[in-house]
Amino acid sequence: MERFWINGVPGRLIDITDRGLAYGDGLFETIAIRHSAPRFLDLHLDRLHAGAVRLGLPAPERGWLHAQLAAAAAGIDEGILKLTLTRGSGPRGYAPPAHPSPTVAWSTEPRKMQRWTQIRVRWCETIAGRNPATAGLKTLCRLEQVLARAEWQDESIAEGLMCDEQGLLTGGTASNVFVVVGNCLQTPEVTRSGISGIMRRVVMEQARECGIEVSEVPMTRLQLLEAREVFVSNALTGIRPVCQLGERDWSPGPVTRSLAMRLAKLGVDECAGNC
Amino acid sequence: MERFWINGVPGRLIDITDRGLAYGDGLFETIAIRHSAPRFLDLHLDRLHAGAVRLGLPAPERGWLHAQLAAAAAGIDEGILKLTLTRGSGPRGYAPPAHPSPTVAWSTEPRKMQRWTQIRVRWCETIAGRNPATAGLKTLCRLEQVLARAEWQDESIAEGLMCDEQGLLTGGTASNVFVVVGNCLQTPEVTRSGISGIMRRVVMEQARECGIEVSEVPMTRLQLLEAREVFVSNALTGIRPVCQLGERDWSPGPVTRSLAMRLAKLGVDECAGNC
Repeated sequence: MERFWINGVPGRLIDITDRGLAYGDGLFETIAIRHSAPRFLDLHLDRLHAGAVRLGLPAPERGWLHAQLAAAAAGIDEGILKLTLTRGSGPRGYAPPAHPSPTVAWSTEPRKMQRWTQIRVRWCETIAGRNPATAGLKTLCRLEQVLARAEWQDESIAEGLMCDEQGLLTGGTASNVFVVVGNCLQTPEVTRSGISGIMRRVVMEQARECGIEVSEVPMTRLQLLEAREVFVSNALTGIRPVCQLGERDWSPGPVTRSLAMRLAKLGVDECAGNC
Repeated sequence: MERFWINGVPGRLIDITDRGLAYGDGLFETIAIRHSAPRFLDLHLDRLHAGAVRLGLPAPERGWLHAQLAAAAAGIDEGILKLTLTRGSGPRGYAPPAHPSPTVAWSTEPRKMQRWTQIRVRWCETIAGRNPATAGLKTLCRLEQVLARAEWQDESIAEGLMCDEQGLLTGGTASNVFVVVGNCLQTPEVTRSGISGIMRRVVMEQARECGIEVSEVPMTRLQLLEAREVFVSNALTGIRPVCQLGERDWSPGPVTRSLAMRLAKLGVDECAGNC
Protein backbone atom coordinates (compact mmCIF):
# COMPACT_ATOMS: atom_id res chain seq x y z
CA MET A 1 0.00 0.00 0.00
CA GLU A 2 1.30 3.43 -0.88
CA ARG A 3 1.79 5.91 1.94
CA PHE A 4 2.30 9.68 1.61
CA TRP A 5 3.80 12.44 3.73
CA ILE A 6 3.94 16.18 3.16
CA ASN A 7 6.36 18.22 5.25
CA GLY A 8 6.61 15.31 7.65
CA VAL A 9 2.88 14.90 8.16
CA PRO A 10 0.90 12.01 6.67
CA GLY A 11 -1.09 13.38 3.74
CA ARG A 12 -1.16 13.63 -0.03
CA LEU A 13 -2.77 16.96 -0.92
CA ILE A 14 -0.84 20.04 -2.00
CA ASP A 15 -1.97 23.54 -2.77
CA ILE A 16 -2.63 24.38 -6.41
CA THR A 17 -0.34 27.43 -6.04
CA ASP A 18 2.67 25.26 -5.21
CA ARG A 19 5.45 26.29 -7.58
CA GLY A 20 6.32 22.66 -8.19
CA LEU A 21 3.02 22.35 -10.03
CA ALA A 22 2.91 25.86 -11.45
CA TYR A 23 6.43 25.97 -12.93
CA GLY A 24 8.18 22.65 -12.35
CA ASP A 25 10.14 24.59 -9.74
CA GLY A 26 11.61 21.69 -7.81
CA LEU A 27 13.47 18.40 -7.77
CA PHE A 28 12.76 14.76 -7.08
CA GLU A 29 14.50 11.52 -6.21
CA THR A 30 13.36 7.97 -6.81
CA ILE A 31 15.02 5.65 -4.35
CA ALA A 32 14.99 1.86 -4.05
CA ILE A 33 14.02 0.40 -0.69
CA ARG A 34 15.72 -2.85 0.30
CA HIS A 35 15.36 -4.65 3.60
CA SER A 36 13.68 -1.69 5.31
CA ALA A 37 16.25 0.89 4.17
CA PRO A 38 16.47 3.44 1.37
CA ARG A 39 19.39 2.29 -0.83
CA PHE A 40 22.18 4.81 -1.52
CA LEU A 41 20.24 7.34 0.57
CA ASP A 42 23.31 9.50 1.18
CA LEU A 43 24.02 9.73 -2.54
CA HIS A 44 20.41 10.69 -3.22
CA LEU A 45 20.51 13.36 -0.53
CA ASP A 46 23.86 14.62 -1.87
CA ARG A 47 22.27 15.07 -5.29
CA LEU A 48 19.13 16.67 -3.87
CA HIS A 49 21.12 19.16 -1.84
CA ALA A 50 23.49 19.98 -4.72
CA GLY A 51 20.47 20.52 -6.99
CA ALA A 52 18.83 22.76 -4.41
CA VAL A 53 21.97 24.90 -4.33
CA ARG A 54 21.92 25.23 -8.13
CA LEU A 55 18.25 26.27 -8.03
CA GLY A 56 18.67 28.61 -5.05
CA LEU A 57 16.10 26.49 -3.23
CA PRO A 58 16.34 26.06 0.56
CA ALA A 59 16.77 22.36 1.30
CA PRO A 60 15.35 20.69 4.39
CA GLU A 61 17.74 20.02 7.24
CA ARG A 62 19.62 16.91 6.16
CA GLY A 63 19.69 15.01 9.43
CA TRP A 64 15.96 15.44 9.89
CA LEU A 65 15.20 14.38 6.32
CA HIS A 66 17.50 11.37 6.54
CA ALA A 67 15.77 10.20 9.70
CA GLN A 68 12.30 10.74 8.24
CA LEU A 69 13.08 8.76 5.09
CA ALA A 70 14.72 5.96 7.02
CA ALA A 71 11.63 5.73 9.22
CA ALA A 72 9.33 5.74 6.17
CA ALA A 73 11.18 2.78 4.64
CA ALA A 74 11.02 0.67 7.79
CA GLY A 75 9.07 -2.55 7.36
CA ILE A 76 9.29 -2.55 3.56
CA ASP A 77 11.43 -5.40 2.28
CA GLU A 78 11.46 -4.21 -1.31
CA GLY A 79 9.90 -1.08 -2.71
CA ILE A 80 10.18 2.50 -3.87
CA LEU A 81 10.64 5.75 -1.99
CA LYS A 82 9.86 8.90 -3.92
CA LEU A 83 11.03 12.26 -2.57
CA THR A 84 9.94 15.63 -3.98
CA LEU A 85 11.23 19.08 -3.03
CA THR A 86 9.54 22.22 -4.40
CA ARG A 87 9.91 25.94 -3.76
CA GLY A 88 6.43 25.83 -2.15
CA SER A 89 3.63 28.31 -2.67
CA GLY A 90 4.16 31.95 -3.40
CA PRO A 91 2.73 34.97 -5.14
CA ARG A 92 1.91 34.76 -8.85
CA GLY A 93 4.81 35.10 -11.30
CA TYR A 94 8.14 33.48 -11.97
CA ALA A 95 10.11 35.54 -9.42
CA PRO A 96 10.89 33.23 -6.50
CA PRO A 97 9.58 34.49 -3.15
CA ALA A 98 12.28 36.18 -1.07
CA HIS A 99 11.56 33.78 1.79
CA PRO A 100 10.20 30.57 0.31
CA SER A 101 8.57 27.85 2.38
CA PRO A 102 9.60 24.75 0.46
CA THR A 103 7.38 21.72 0.20
CA VAL A 104 9.11 18.40 0.89
CA ALA A 105 7.00 15.36 0.22
CA TRP A 106 7.72 11.64 0.17
CA SER A 107 5.88 8.43 -0.44
CA THR A 108 6.61 4.73 -0.14
CA GLU A 109 5.30 1.84 -2.15
CA PRO A 110 6.17 -1.83 -1.61
CA ARG A 111 7.05 -3.31 -5.00
CA LYS A 112 9.14 -6.22 -6.28
CA MET A 113 11.98 -5.04 -8.51
CA GLN A 114 12.82 -6.71 -11.78
CA ARG A 115 15.85 -8.99 -11.51
CA TRP A 116 18.68 -9.06 -14.05
CA THR A 117 16.99 -8.97 -17.42
CA GLN A 118 18.27 -8.31 -20.85
CA ILE A 119 16.10 -5.68 -22.42
CA ARG A 120 14.97 -4.60 -25.85
CA VAL A 121 15.13 -0.87 -26.50
CA ARG A 122 14.08 1.50 -29.30
CA TRP A 123 14.98 4.91 -30.61
CA CYS A 124 12.56 7.69 -29.67
CA GLU A 125 11.55 10.38 -32.14
CA THR A 126 10.97 12.97 -29.44
CA ILE A 127 14.02 15.20 -29.47
CA ALA A 128 15.71 15.67 -26.13
CA GLY A 129 16.12 19.36 -25.34
CA ARG A 130 19.36 21.11 -24.52
CA ASN A 131 18.98 22.90 -21.22
CA PRO A 132 22.38 23.84 -19.78
CA ALA A 133 20.85 25.74 -16.84
CA THR A 134 19.20 22.63 -15.44
CA ALA A 135 20.97 19.72 -17.18
CA GLY A 136 22.06 16.90 -14.89
CA LEU A 137 19.40 17.76 -12.31
CA LYS A 138 16.35 15.62 -11.71
CA THR A 139 13.99 18.58 -11.92
CA LEU A 140 10.21 18.33 -12.06
CA CYS A 141 10.32 19.41 -15.74
CA ARG A 142 10.16 16.00 -17.43
CA LEU A 143 7.64 16.54 -20.19
CA GLU A 144 9.99 15.44 -22.97
CA GLN A 145 10.54 12.12 -21.21
CA VAL A 146 6.77 11.72 -20.96
CA LEU A 147 6.34 12.40 -24.69
CA ALA A 148 9.16 10.01 -25.55
CA ARG A 149 7.75 7.26 -23.31
CA ALA A 150 4.33 7.75 -24.92
CA GLU A 151 5.76 6.72 -28.30
CA TRP A 152 5.38 2.99 -27.69
CA GLN A 153 2.96 0.63 -25.96
CA ASP A 154 4.71 -2.64 -26.85
CA GLU A 155 5.54 -4.05 -23.43
CA SER A 156 8.43 -6.11 -24.79
CA ILE A 157 10.31 -2.82 -25.28
CA ALA A 158 11.65 -1.77 -21.89
CA GLU A 159 13.23 1.57 -22.71
CA GLY A 160 13.53 4.25 -25.39
CA LEU A 161 16.73 6.09 -26.23
CA MET A 162 16.62 9.84 -26.86
CA CYS A 163 18.86 12.06 -28.95
CA ASP A 164 19.20 15.81 -29.12
CA GLU A 165 18.88 18.01 -32.22
CA GLN A 166 22.42 17.14 -33.27
CA GLY A 167 21.70 13.43 -33.10
CA LEU A 168 23.75 12.99 -29.94
CA LEU A 169 22.46 10.40 -27.49
CA THR A 170 21.27 11.92 -24.21
CA GLY A 171 20.08 8.75 -22.44
CA GLY A 172 17.03 6.60 -22.00
CA THR A 173 13.65 8.10 -21.04
CA ALA A 174 14.26 6.91 -17.46
CA SER A 175 17.83 5.65 -17.46
CA ASN A 176 21.42 6.47 -18.28
CA VAL A 177 23.13 4.61 -21.09
CA PHE A 178 26.60 3.04 -21.06
CA VAL A 179 28.54 1.43 -23.89
CA VAL A 180 31.76 -0.55 -23.91
CA VAL A 181 34.22 0.44 -26.64
CA GLY A 182 37.49 -1.47 -26.59
CA ASN A 183 38.08 -1.81 -22.86
CA CYS A 184 36.58 1.58 -22.04
CA LEU A 185 33.21 2.40 -20.57
CA GLN A 186 31.54 5.44 -22.14
CA THR A 187 28.39 7.35 -21.26
CA PRO A 188 26.87 10.58 -22.61
CA GLU A 189 27.78 13.82 -20.89
CA VAL A 190 24.99 15.40 -18.83
CA THR A 191 26.07 19.03 -19.11
CA ARG A 192 23.44 20.09 -21.66
CA SER A 193 20.80 17.40 -21.35
CA GLY A 194 20.05 14.28 -19.35
CA ILE A 195 20.22 13.47 -15.67
CA SER A 196 23.19 12.71 -13.48
CA GLY A 197 21.78 9.40 -12.25
CA ILE A 198 22.67 7.87 -8.91
CA MET A 199 23.17 4.40 -10.40
CA ARG A 200 25.20 6.07 -13.18
CA ARG A 201 27.49 7.50 -10.52
CA VAL A 202 27.80 4.19 -8.69
CA VAL A 203 28.56 2.35 -11.95
CA MET A 204 31.26 4.87 -12.89
CA GLU A 205 32.87 4.61 -9.45
CA GLN A 206 32.82 0.82 -9.52
CA ALA A 207 34.27 0.70 -13.01
CA ARG A 208 37.12 3.01 -12.04
CA GLU A 209 37.79 0.98 -8.90
CA CYS A 210 38.35 -2.13 -10.95
CA GLY A 211 40.58 -0.35 -13.43
CA ILE A 212 38.15 0.25 -16.28
CA GLU A 213 38.64 3.59 -18.00
CA VAL A 214 35.42 5.64 -17.93
CA SER A 215 34.67 8.66 -20.06
CA GLU A 216 31.76 11.03 -20.55
CA VAL A 217 31.57 11.75 -24.24
CA PRO A 218 29.35 13.05 -27.03
CA MET A 219 27.90 9.83 -28.51
CA THR A 220 26.20 9.34 -31.85
CA ARG A 221 23.65 6.64 -32.73
CA LEU A 222 26.31 4.93 -34.84
CA GLN A 223 28.80 4.84 -31.97
CA LEU A 224 26.20 3.14 -29.81
CA LEU A 225 25.38 0.58 -32.51
CA GLU A 226 29.06 -0.22 -32.99
CA ALA A 227 29.73 -0.73 -29.28
CA ARG A 228 30.59 -4.22 -28.02
CA GLU A 229 28.29 -3.97 -25.01
CA VAL A 230 25.42 -1.65 -24.14
CA PHE A 231 23.55 -1.37 -20.85
CA VAL A 232 21.26 1.08 -19.08
CA SER A 233 21.32 2.12 -15.44
CA ASN A 234 18.58 3.31 -13.12
CA ALA A 235 18.34 3.63 -9.34
CA LEU A 236 15.45 1.18 -9.15
CA THR A 237 16.46 -1.45 -11.68
CA GLY A 238 20.25 -1.38 -11.33
CA ILE A 239 21.91 -2.15 -14.63
CA ARG A 240 20.24 -3.98 -17.48
CA PRO A 241 22.09 -5.18 -20.60
CA VAL A 242 20.56 -4.15 -23.90
CA CYS A 243 20.04 -7.26 -26.06
CA GLN A 244 18.25 -5.67 -28.99
CA LEU A 245 17.83 -2.33 -30.73
CA GLY A 246 16.19 -2.53 -34.14
CA GLU A 247 18.24 -4.93 -36.25
CA ARG A 248 21.21 -4.93 -33.87
CA ASP A 249 21.53 -7.47 -31.09
CA TRP A 250 24.00 -8.05 -28.29
CA SER A 251 24.73 -10.68 -25.67
CA PRO A 252 25.63 -9.52 -22.16
CA GLY A 253 29.37 -8.97 -22.26
CA PRO A 254 32.16 -9.35 -19.72
CA VAL A 255 32.30 -5.70 -18.62
CA THR A 256 28.57 -5.56 -17.96
CA ARG A 257 28.72 -8.85 -16.05
CA SER A 258 31.64 -7.84 -13.90
CA LEU A 259 29.99 -4.51 -13.04
CA ALA A 260 26.78 -6.33 -12.14
CA MET A 261 28.71 -8.55 -9.76
CA ARG A 262 30.35 -5.57 -8.10
CA LEU A 263 26.97 -3.85 -7.74
CA ALA A 264 25.51 -6.98 -6.19
CA LYS A 265 28.06 -6.64 -3.41
CA LEU A 266 26.66 -3.14 -2.78
CA GLY A 267 23.15 -4.51 -2.46
CA VAL A 268 22.06 -4.00 -6.04
CA ASP A 269 21.04 -7.61 -6.37
CA GLU A 270 18.69 -6.87 -9.26
CA CYS A 271 21.84 -7.32 -11.32
CA ALA A 272 23.10 -10.51 -9.76
CA GLY A 273 20.66 -13.16 -10.90
CA ASN A 274 22.39 -14.68 -13.88
CA CYS A 275 25.90 -13.35 -13.81
CA MET B 1 -9.70 37.92 -3.07
CA GLU B 2 -8.40 34.93 -4.94
CA ARG B 3 -10.82 32.09 -5.71
CA PHE B 4 -9.96 28.58 -6.86
CA TRP B 5 -11.74 25.76 -8.68
CA ILE B 6 -10.60 22.23 -9.47
CA ASN B 7 -12.54 20.27 -12.08
CA GLY B 8 -15.36 22.76 -11.73
CA VAL B 9 -15.66 22.48 -7.94
CA PRO B 10 -14.47 25.22 -5.59
CA GLY B 11 -11.21 24.06 -4.03
CA ARG B 12 -7.44 24.44 -4.20
CA LEU B 13 -5.93 21.09 -3.22
CA ILE B 14 -4.54 18.59 -5.67
CA ASP B 15 -3.15 15.12 -5.22
CA ILE B 16 0.63 14.81 -4.88
CA THR B 17 0.56 12.14 -7.63
CA ASP B 18 -0.84 14.61 -10.19
CA ARG B 19 1.43 14.41 -13.22
CA GLY B 20 1.40 18.20 -13.50
CA LEU B 21 3.42 18.29 -10.30
CA ALA B 22 5.38 15.08 -10.86
CA TYR B 23 6.56 15.78 -14.41
CA GLY B 24 5.33 19.19 -15.57
CA ASP B 25 2.92 17.15 -17.67
CA GLY B 26 0.44 19.89 -18.53
CA LEU B 27 -0.26 23.38 -19.81
CA PHE B 28 -1.45 26.70 -18.45
CA GLU B 29 -2.94 29.98 -19.59
CA THR B 30 -2.81 33.36 -17.91
CA ILE B 31 -5.75 35.47 -19.02
CA ALA B 32 -6.61 39.10 -18.34
CA ILE B 33 -10.07 39.79 -16.96
CA ARG B 34 -11.69 43.06 -18.04
CA HIS B 35 -15.19 44.21 -17.22
CA SER B 36 -16.27 40.80 -15.96
CA ALA B 37 -14.97 38.87 -18.98
CA PRO B 38 -11.81 36.88 -19.78
CA ARG B 39 -10.07 38.83 -22.56
CA PHE B 40 -9.23 36.92 -25.78
CA LEU B 41 -10.73 33.83 -24.18
CA ASP B 42 -11.23 32.09 -27.53
CA LEU B 43 -7.60 32.61 -28.47
CA HIS B 44 -6.48 31.21 -25.11
CA LEU B 45 -8.73 28.16 -25.51
CA ASP B 46 -7.48 27.70 -29.08
CA ARG B 47 -3.93 27.58 -27.78
CA LEU B 48 -4.80 25.30 -24.87
CA HIS B 49 -6.58 22.84 -27.15
CA ALA B 50 -3.81 22.91 -29.77
CA GLY B 51 -1.26 22.30 -27.02
CA ALA B 52 -3.32 19.42 -25.63
CA VAL B 53 -3.32 17.81 -29.08
CA ARG B 54 0.48 18.12 -29.28
CA LEU B 55 0.84 16.52 -25.85
CA GLY B 56 -1.76 13.81 -26.49
CA LEU B 57 -3.66 15.16 -23.50
CA PRO B 58 -7.48 14.98 -23.47
CA ALA B 59 -8.82 18.53 -23.24
CA PRO B 60 -12.00 19.42 -21.40
CA GLU B 61 -15.13 19.99 -23.48
CA ARG B 62 -14.69 23.46 -24.86
CA GLY B 63 -18.23 24.78 -24.44
CA TRP B 64 -18.31 23.71 -20.81
CA LEU B 65 -14.90 25.22 -20.08
CA HIS B 66 -15.76 28.48 -21.84
CA ALA B 67 -18.92 28.82 -19.77
CA GLN B 68 -17.13 28.00 -16.51
CA LEU B 69 -14.39 30.56 -17.13
CA ALA B 70 -16.88 33.24 -18.17
CA ALA B 71 -18.80 32.60 -14.96
CA ALA B 72 -15.63 32.73 -12.87
CA ALA B 73 -14.74 36.16 -14.27
CA ALA B 74 -18.16 37.66 -13.59
CA GLY B 75 -18.07 40.56 -11.16
CA ILE B 76 -14.35 41.22 -11.59
CA ASP B 77 -13.70 44.54 -13.28
CA GLU B 78 -9.98 44.00 -13.69
CA GLY B 79 -7.99 40.95 -12.77
CA ILE B 80 -6.31 37.69 -13.71
CA LEU B 81 -7.70 34.29 -14.59
CA LYS B 82 -5.24 31.42 -14.47
CA LEU B 83 -6.14 28.12 -16.11
CA THR B 84 -4.14 24.89 -15.67
CA LEU B 85 -4.63 21.58 -17.46
CA THR B 86 -2.66 18.48 -16.40
CA ARG B 87 -2.75 14.80 -17.34
CA GLY B 88 -4.08 14.11 -13.83
CA SER B 89 -2.95 11.35 -11.50
CA GLY B 90 -1.72 8.00 -12.67
CA PRO B 91 0.61 5.14 -11.86
CA ARG B 92 4.30 5.82 -11.23
CA GLY B 93 6.52 6.34 -14.27
CA TYR B 94 6.65 8.58 -17.32
CA ALA B 95 4.32 6.45 -19.44
CA PRO B 96 1.02 8.34 -19.68
CA PRO B 97 -1.97 6.34 -18.43
CA ALA B 98 -3.99 4.78 -21.26
CA HIS B 99 -7.12 6.52 -20.00
CA PRO B 100 -6.05 9.66 -18.18
CA SER B 101 -8.41 11.72 -16.02
CA PRO B 102 -7.07 15.23 -16.62
CA THR B 103 -7.11 17.88 -13.94
CA VAL B 104 -8.45 21.25 -15.04
CA ALA B 105 -8.09 24.01 -12.50
CA TRP B 106 -8.66 27.73 -12.60
CA SER B 107 -8.42 30.68 -10.28
CA THR B 108 -9.35 34.33 -10.35
CA GLU B 109 -7.72 37.29 -8.69
CA PRO B 110 -8.89 40.91 -8.91
CA ARG B 111 -5.87 43.05 -9.72
CA LYS B 112 -5.20 46.41 -11.35
CA MET B 113 -3.06 46.10 -14.46
CA GLN B 114 -0.17 48.41 -15.18
CA ARG B 115 -1.05 51.05 -17.76
CA TRP B 116 1.24 51.99 -20.69
CA THR B 117 4.69 52.22 -19.23
CA GLN B 118 8.07 52.31 -20.76
CA ILE B 119 10.21 49.68 -19.15
CA ARG B 120 13.83 49.03 -18.41
CA VAL B 121 15.07 45.53 -19.22
CA ARG B 122 18.27 43.53 -18.74
CA TRP B 123 20.02 40.56 -20.26
CA CYS B 124 19.73 37.34 -18.28
CA GLU B 125 22.65 34.98 -17.88
CA THR B 126 20.44 31.90 -17.59
CA ILE B 127 20.59 30.20 -20.96
CA ALA B 128 17.23 29.46 -22.55
CA GLY B 129 16.99 25.81 -23.52
CA ARG B 130 16.20 24.48 -26.96
CA ASN B 131 13.25 22.11 -26.70
CA PRO B 132 11.73 21.48 -30.12
CA ALA B 133 9.24 18.91 -28.78
CA THR B 134 7.51 21.46 -26.57
CA ALA B 135 8.62 24.85 -27.92
CA GLY B 136 5.84 27.37 -28.41
CA LEU B 137 3.64 25.70 -25.78
CA LYS B 138 2.95 27.20 -22.38
CA THR B 139 3.82 23.99 -20.57
CA LEU B 140 4.22 23.65 -16.82
CA CYS B 141 8.01 23.25 -17.31
CA ARG B 142 9.15 26.81 -16.65
CA LEU B 143 12.15 26.36 -14.41
CA GLU B 144 14.52 28.26 -16.70
CA GLN B 145 12.23 31.29 -16.58
CA VAL B 146 12.22 31.04 -12.79
CA LEU B 147 16.03 30.94 -12.68
CA ALA B 148 16.28 33.86 -15.10
CA ARG B 149 13.77 35.94 -13.15
CA ALA B 150 15.70 35.18 -9.94
CA GLU B 151 18.75 36.98 -11.36
CA TRP B 152 17.59 40.44 -10.32
CA GLN B 153 15.73 42.09 -7.45
CA ASP B 154 15.96 45.70 -8.70
CA GLU B 155 12.29 46.63 -9.09
CA SER B 156 13.09 49.29 -11.66
CA ILE B 157 13.93 46.48 -14.09
CA ALA B 158 10.66 45.11 -15.41
CA GLU B 159 11.86 42.24 -17.55
CA GLY B 160 14.89 40.12 -18.45
CA LEU B 161 15.75 38.95 -21.94
CA MET B 162 16.95 35.41 -22.50
CA CYS B 163 19.18 33.95 -25.20
CA ASP B 164 19.90 30.37 -26.16
CA GLU B 165 23.31 28.69 -26.37
CA GLN B 166 23.94 30.26 -29.76
CA GLY B 167 23.27 33.74 -28.43
CA LEU B 168 19.92 33.95 -30.19
CA LEU B 169 17.20 35.87 -28.38
CA THR B 170 14.31 33.66 -27.28
CA GLY B 171 12.17 36.26 -25.49
CA GLY B 172 11.63 37.82 -22.10
CA THR B 173 11.20 35.68 -18.99
CA ALA B 174 7.45 36.33 -19.18
CA SER B 175 6.96 38.10 -22.49
CA ASN B 176 7.61 37.98 -26.20
CA VAL B 177 9.94 40.54 -27.73
CA PHE B 178 9.39 42.61 -30.87
CA VAL B 179 11.76 44.93 -32.67
CA VAL B 180 11.23 47.39 -35.50
CA VAL B 181 13.87 47.27 -38.23
CA GLY B 182 13.26 49.62 -41.13
CA ASN B 183 9.49 49.42 -41.46
CA CYS B 184 9.33 45.75 -40.50
CA LEU B 185 8.28 44.18 -37.25
CA GLN B 186 10.44 41.24 -36.20
CA THR B 187 10.13 38.74 -33.36
CA PRO B 188 12.06 35.58 -32.50
CA GLU B 189 10.81 32.27 -33.84
CA VAL B 190 9.25 29.96 -31.24
CA THR B 191 10.00 26.63 -32.91
CA ARG B 192 12.88 25.61 -30.65
CA SER B 193 12.39 27.79 -27.59
CA GLY B 194 9.99 30.37 -26.22
CA ILE B 195 6.22 30.55 -26.06
CA SER B 196 3.72 31.39 -28.73
CA GLY B 197 2.11 34.21 -26.73
CA ILE B 198 -1.51 35.25 -27.17
CA MET B 199 -0.60 38.96 -27.15
CA ARG B 200 2.21 38.13 -29.59
CA ARG B 201 -0.34 36.63 -31.93
CA VAL B 202 -2.69 39.62 -31.59
CA VAL B 203 0.16 42.07 -32.21
CA MET B 204 1.26 40.18 -35.32
CA GLU B 205 -2.29 40.13 -36.68
CA GLN B 206 -2.81 43.82 -36.00
CA ALA B 207 0.49 44.73 -37.59
CA ARG B 208 -0.34 42.78 -40.75
CA GLU B 209 -3.79 44.34 -40.89
CA CYS B 210 -2.29 47.78 -41.01
CA GLY B 211 0.24 46.82 -43.65
CA ILE B 212 3.32 46.33 -41.53
CA GLU B 213 5.50 43.45 -42.65
CA VAL B 214 6.01 40.93 -39.83
CA SER B 215 8.63 38.23 -39.70
CA GLU B 216 9.73 35.55 -37.26
CA VAL B 217 13.50 35.43 -37.39
CA PRO B 218 16.60 34.29 -35.57
CA MET B 219 17.68 37.44 -33.69
CA THR B 220 21.03 38.21 -32.11
CA ARG B 221 21.68 40.59 -29.22
CA LEU B 222 23.26 43.02 -31.64
CA GLN B 223 20.24 43.03 -33.93
CA LEU B 224 18.07 43.91 -30.97
CA LEU B 225 20.38 46.71 -29.87
CA GLU B 226 20.43 48.16 -33.39
CA ALA B 227 16.65 48.13 -33.76
CA ARG B 228 14.78 51.46 -33.96
CA GLU B 229 12.05 50.35 -31.59
CA VAL B 230 11.79 47.49 -29.09
CA PHE B 231 8.75 46.39 -27.13
CA VAL B 232 7.58 43.35 -25.19
CA SER B 233 4.15 41.75 -25.22
CA ASN B 234 2.26 39.77 -22.60
CA ALA B 235 -1.39 38.78 -22.21
CA LEU B 236 -1.74 40.68 -18.94
CA THR B 237 0.26 43.84 -19.64
CA GLY B 238 -0.38 44.29 -23.36
CA ILE B 239 2.61 45.86 -25.04
CA ARG B 240 5.28 47.86 -23.25
CA PRO B 241 8.02 49.82 -25.02
CA VAL B 242 11.55 49.15 -23.87
CA CYS B 243 13.23 52.43 -22.98
CA GLN B 244 16.51 51.11 -21.63
CA LEU B 245 18.77 48.07 -21.87
CA GLY B 246 22.24 48.57 -20.40
CA GLU B 247 23.77 51.60 -22.13
CA ARG B 248 21.22 51.67 -24.92
CA ASP B 249 18.04 53.72 -24.68
CA TRP B 250 15.01 54.20 -26.86
CA SER B 251 11.94 56.45 -27.00
CA PRO B 252 8.61 54.85 -27.88
CA GLY B 253 8.47 54.92 -31.67
CA PRO B 254 5.69 55.31 -34.21
CA VAL B 255 5.16 51.61 -34.90
CA THR B 256 4.84 50.77 -31.21
CA ARG B 257 2.44 53.68 -30.71
CA SER B 258 0.25 52.79 -33.63
CA LEU B 259 0.05 49.16 -32.52
CA ALA B 260 -0.84 50.27 -29.01
CA MET B 261 -3.69 52.35 -30.40
CA ARG B 262 -5.00 49.42 -32.42
CA LEU B 263 -4.81 47.15 -29.38
CA ALA B 264 -6.70 49.72 -27.32
CA LYS B 265 -9.61 49.32 -29.74
CA LEU B 266 -9.59 45.59 -28.92
CA GLY B 267 -9.83 46.32 -25.21
CA VAL B 268 -6.12 46.25 -24.43
CA ASP B 269 -6.27 49.64 -22.82
CA GLU B 270 -3.12 49.06 -20.80
CA CYS B 271 -1.44 50.35 -23.92
CA ALA B 272 -3.58 53.38 -24.53
CA GLY B 273 -2.63 55.75 -21.72
CA ASN B 274 -0.08 57.98 -23.33
CA CYS B 275 -0.27 57.28 -27.04
